[in-house]
Amino acid sequence: MRKPELIERLSHLVGDTGLVLDAEGQAPYVRDWLGKWQGGTPVVVRPRNATEVSAVMRLCHQSRTPVVPQGGNTGMSGGATPDASGAQVILSLNRMTRIREVDPVNNTLCADAGVLLADVQQAARCAGRLFPLSLGSEGSCTLGGNLATNAGGTAVLRYGNTRDLALGLEVVLPDGRVWNGLRGLRKDNTGYDLKSLFIGSEGTLGIITGAMLKLFPAPAGRATAWVGAESLAQVVGLLTRMQAACGDRLTAFEMMSARCLDLIVAHVDGAANPLSARHPYYALLELSDTEPSGLPTMLESTLGGALEAGLIQDCVIAMNDSQAQSMWRLREGISQAQMRAGKAVKHDIAVPISRLAAFVDEADLALMSEFPHLPIVNFGHIGDGNLHYNVLLPLDVAPAEYARLTAALNRRVHDLVAQRGGSISAEHGVGQLRRDELRRYKSPVEMDLMLMIKRALDPNQLMNPGKLL
Amino acid sequence: MRKPELIERLSHLVGDTGLVLDAEGQAPYVRDWLGKWQGGTPVVVRPRNATEVSAVMRLCHQSRTPVVPQGGNTGMSGGATPDASGAQVILSLNRMTRIREVDPVNNTLCADAGVLLADVQQAARCAGRLFPLSLGSEGSCTLGGNLATNAGGTAVLRYGNTRDLALGLEVVLPDGRVWNGLRGLRKDNTGYDLKSLFIGSEGTLGIITGAMLKLFPAPAGRATAWVGAESLAQVVGLLTRMQAACGDRLTAFEMMSARCLDLIVAHVDGAANPLSARHPYYALLELSDTEPSGLPTMLESTLGGALEAGLIQDCVIAMNDSQAQSMWRLREGISQAQMRAGKAVKHDIAVPISRLAAFVDEADLALMSEFPHLPIVNFGHIGDGNLHYNVLLPLDVAPAEYARLTAALNRRVHDLVAQRGGSISAEHGVGQLRRDELRRYKSPVEMDLMLMIKRALDPNQLMNPGKLL
Repeated sequence: MRKPELIERLSHLVGDTGLVLDAEGQAPYVRDWLGKWQGGTPVVVRPRNATEVSAVMRLCHQSRTPVVPQGGNTGMSGGATPDASGAQVILSLNRMTRIREVDPVNNTLCADAGVLLADVQQAARCAGRLFPLSLGSEGSCTLGGNLATNAGGTAVLRYGNTRDLALGLEVVLPDGRVWNGLRGLRKDNTGYDLKSLFIGSEGTLGIITGAMLKLFPAPAGRATAWVGAESLAQVVGLLTRMQAACGDRLTAFEMMSARCLDLIVAHVDGAANPLSARHPYYALLELSDTEPSGLPTMLESTLGGALEAGLIQDCVIAMNDSQAQSMWRLREGISQAQMRAGKAVKHDIAVPISRLAAFVDEADLALMSEFPHLPIVNFGHIGDGNLHYNVLLPLDVAPAEYARLTAALNRRVHDLVAQRGGSISAEHGVGQLRRDELRRYKSPVEMDLMLMIKRALDPNQLMNPGKLL
Repeated sequence: MRKPELIERLSHLVGDTGLVLDAEGQAPYVRDWLGKWQGGTPVVVRPRNATEVSAVMRLCHQSRTPVVPQGGNTGMSGGATPDASGAQVILSLNRMTRIREVDPVNNTLCADAGVLLADVQQAARCAGRLFPLSLGSEGSCTLGGNLATNAGGTAVLRYGNTRDLALGLEVVLPDGRVWNGLRGLRKDNTGYDLKSLFIGSEGTLGIITGAMLKLFPAPAGRATAWVGAESLAQVVGLLTRMQAACGDRLTAFEMMSARCLDLIVAHVDGAANPLSARHPYYALLELSDTEPSGLPTMLESTLGGALEAGLIQDCVIAMNDSQAQSMWRLREGISQAQMRAGKAVKHDIAVPISRLAAFVDEADLALMSEFPHLPIVNFGHIGDGNLHYNVLLPLDVAPAEYARLTAALNRRVHDLVAQRGGSISAEHGVGQLRRDELRRYKSPVEMDLMLMIKRALDPNQLMNPGKLL
């Protein structure tokens, strides 16, 4: 279909205000927020509800127009950016911002895909419940993007990934049909788990327009601590000990290396090591509970036992909210510190927790020998086996050199990850970023299974082409 | 392929001891344990490992031989019983009983599909961990069957269904290829969630030969209580209150009606109402914790508050393990009591928890008016919204009358379930039992999505024909 006709027909479906046609208006849609990917589009379409999404998809299906679904455009892997052909329509969910229903007795919340994650959290809070998904970008990312990428974050240890937090979906299929799978059930064994298939499929199988989410009892209090340890093996040992003693109260267990904290202290205003000495590794722990009165004692005695056993070197427990927030600000300051300190070659990897320490030892050695001048910035969600094992290049590194080193470092690190049975994209998704690498690390059988499903559900290959597969 | 040739070639693949050919030996395989379904098979094949399963499936694929995978043969829906044609080979996993690895640091356990659930639980316990899946049949059901049916049970409230308890799978595809997806990762966003697709697919997409399971910190103690309430709405109110106060400590929240307890007391030796008076509804609650010292007080004060608020009528807290076991024996005695009291027309349904009480009111009314002489036996996992809303027919009901009433009752109950956004198979799966009904209650879009996936992964329709779809 020619562009003028496509646009005219789209304007009938969503109204003129539902289309973004001018280059200036399109600018924030055709480029990812990191500025890594830039594409073009004939039109950004902004439907108001699933019925309009359905109509748009039917038209795109008939006219064989490829579609790139987009939420808050905060992804890390270029999954929501169109290619440079200018042929891919961007379908933005950013006008679908309705919280449809909160049911505190069923512990569910139903919402449009375009709702900001922070607004979902807030709606749950207003009902005296918790929606635990929590990310750095929660003020600008959308529920639909969280679902499409199966977003992770800092509460996965206790509450799981986005997939674990959804009970049902509403999805517009590539041919425009609407699958209403918005069930609010904890048990439903009536066929294939379609919901889990669409979650994490990065817009390549259909467009998630709504979701039924799980809510949880709101914790009534927290206890937070900062720990210094001699090695990553010790940090992992502490995790095991904390889980045994505190069970589900352990809501977060974050780790950063000494060099990572150094960067934060150097580049983030007001940041300081909560401990008096420098330690090779640090951990940030949080306990939470619906009945929190015992938390400080529990945290104290568990960490006290770990200190006595020589498992950790030092620790400090936050005495109040403000101290706890200071500890979390260190964790949250990593991105900013990294950006100021250099150009990061990022890895979002996971390995089994029991192999984490050995993996890092081996990777550190390999990188120090091959790339001796490049500092490693290692931090992550240890409780999930998820490391952001990044490497810093100078801020003024030439683009070609940056590309060369990125490829070389990715290859070295990801080969080691694969050897340990790990994942090359733990929480950020594949998008454009890891698409070529995926073929290197997935077995042919697994690639073929995914392609069989893709061909079955999107035979014309119109959904988010060039992403994931 | 002719039967003698098929058998000869199979014997080359798995050895003579791997085949069951005589009618007597086949008897326990061709009939389900409830005696509801009876079929025939040319041969029961019992491979010893995934490589043998792969070879068998390759042969079946080449010879277009349909295959029925079977675990412990303890299913409720006829999903593991071949049809009467005598053409379907039974592939039993019962020689694949190896616990492959327990990793207490990663909190994972890797096992063959043929391992008994009780043996998985035991292996976890030996490592100081918990594998929480717990069913009445745990001494005879297998992990593979639990995965294929996404089994539920009494711990779903806290730990989720089987799908939530698996991190990775090994699956032999219909054409004999092996997908090794045995990853032990909490985060892995590298493509479609194939694992969740095979789990709950009831053997219609491939054969699960191994799994990587999640383990949990072992609770160090429990507190158990028995509650009497005036209505189901009160029981649901108590659930909400308990969740707010106790959070994740609430491990079980079971319900039974007065009539259900009457049956148990009448038919199970030594069974008695733990309370002095009869109440319209009862709940059995369990708290557990890694640090259990506060549990009795917490249970007492929460139930005390509920009593004072008039939310419940009476309650008793187990003072020791033996009292707790007596309470659980009542719950576990339901099947036996039902079998002795009559022929049950069973429903394994779920509705949103907020609609449970209204659903039961409406269903009770409808059934009492249409089937005034048939007692309703209502019990279930209220914490998951899952009711076993059964109806008792006389033990000597004529087969034709049993069939007629079953169909009429199923229709009445399931129509009401569907109106409330519920599921007609919460935990037992579809199998042969609910296959025809599924088409009535699923949308055409959802049926079509499932069929598209089935055709893509099993184009020759050889996997467990006649089940689910």
